[in-house]
Amino acid sequence: MQAPTPAVPRLFHFAAGDHGQWRIEKILPVIGETLALAPKLAISSGDFSAAADKSTWVLHGKTSNDRYVERAEKTQLQNRQEGLGRAHATCAALIPIRKNAAWWALTQDERRAIFEEKSHHTEIGLKYLPEIARKLHHCRDLDADQPFDFLTWFEYAPEHTAAFEDLLVALRETLEWKYVDWEVDVRLIRAS
Amino acid sequence: MQAPTPAVPRLFHFAAGDHGQWRIEKILPVIGETLALAPKLAISSGDFSAAADKSTWVLHGKTSNDRYVERAEKTQLQNRQEGLGRAHATCAALIPIRKNAAWWALTQDERRAIFEEKSHHTEIGLKYLPEIARKLHHCRDLDADQPFDFLTWFEYAPEHTAAFEDLLVALRETLEWKYVDWEVDVRLIRAS
Repeated sequence: MQAPTPAVPRLFHFAAGDHGQWRIEKILPVIGETLALAPKLAISSGDFSAAADKSTWVLHGKTSNDRYVERAEKTQLQNRQEGLGRAHATCAALIPIRKNAAWWALTQDERRAIFEEKSHHTEIGLKYLPEIARKLHHCRDLDADQPFDFLTWFEYAPEHTAAFEDLLVALRETLEWKYVDWEVDVRLIRAS
Repeated sequence: MQAPTPAVPRLFHFAAGDHGQWRIEKILPVIGETLALAPKLAISSGDFSAAADKSTWVLHGKTSNDRYVERAEKTQLQNRQEGLGRAHATCAALIPIRKNAAWWALTQDERRAIFEEKSHHTEIGLKYLPEIARKLHHCRDLDADQPFDFLTWFEYAPEHTAAFEDLLVALRETLEWKYVDWEVDVRLIRAS
């Protein structure tokens, strides 16, 4: 009764500490408390041994199926987005957020209405494609309860930093963001 | 950076073996291979030590937010449903299912249309309330990849066994069920 070995890993670990592929430039608390600063961030997938870990902090998240995006939106996203790991995209951001209990008590139609019809989440993101690449990780349904609900990882070239700031400002002004009760903004530079 | 201790446990373990609160009456493969028979099923929540476990099989699932139900449907469900653990509900079923890759590649609007507008999943379930109590556990976003995507636990009184069979027949005839590629039906009687 083994689960089939997945072709693509879905569980990712973001460990802040003394080593990693990314240098942490700064950590800004946006809503609520901050995360401790460390020199580097190591991203890994698959098994993670908490016992052997000496990180300052570790966040875990899993990629999953889309929760809100509809077909027409997905087609637009797929036509315009580019993947992670582009050589010129040497800037990154890890933005962990938590949404409050009121959000999670909403039904699917209510959450969708806030997410897109009122907050235009996907539409805002589309404006910044393909410059800003993005990958969403879900934390809420992992085995252990996690401090955050979502970890979003963004990659972009240094010349698109201002565009990335605009994207964040636009999202943070939405009705959806009134349900965010913890948000931290971790900025990184690819370690050379 | 501890996650707050949850008031209500969300992670559950269904372990078939020599002990447990439920006696396994029979195990029927519905689609695909079966699960091995064992005398009892033990249900627990919170931490689970796989190393110390001598179960025949163990399935893990986590309760989560609703994925498809809309407000009007939820209100109807809440007005009519009763909880688990009713003294007269001495019969139970554990029905693990897996949905295929085609299902998971659908967008939210496509899955919702199949789930409710075409398959009337919630509407079918409503007909059997409050007799059949139900609790859904999600497996897909747990840390490790799991054999099944969902574990649904049902409880009902012996005199509602025929109604429960009707419910299953109705669900298995839906368009939604064409995306189910593994389903096992475990029937249980509360151990006295």
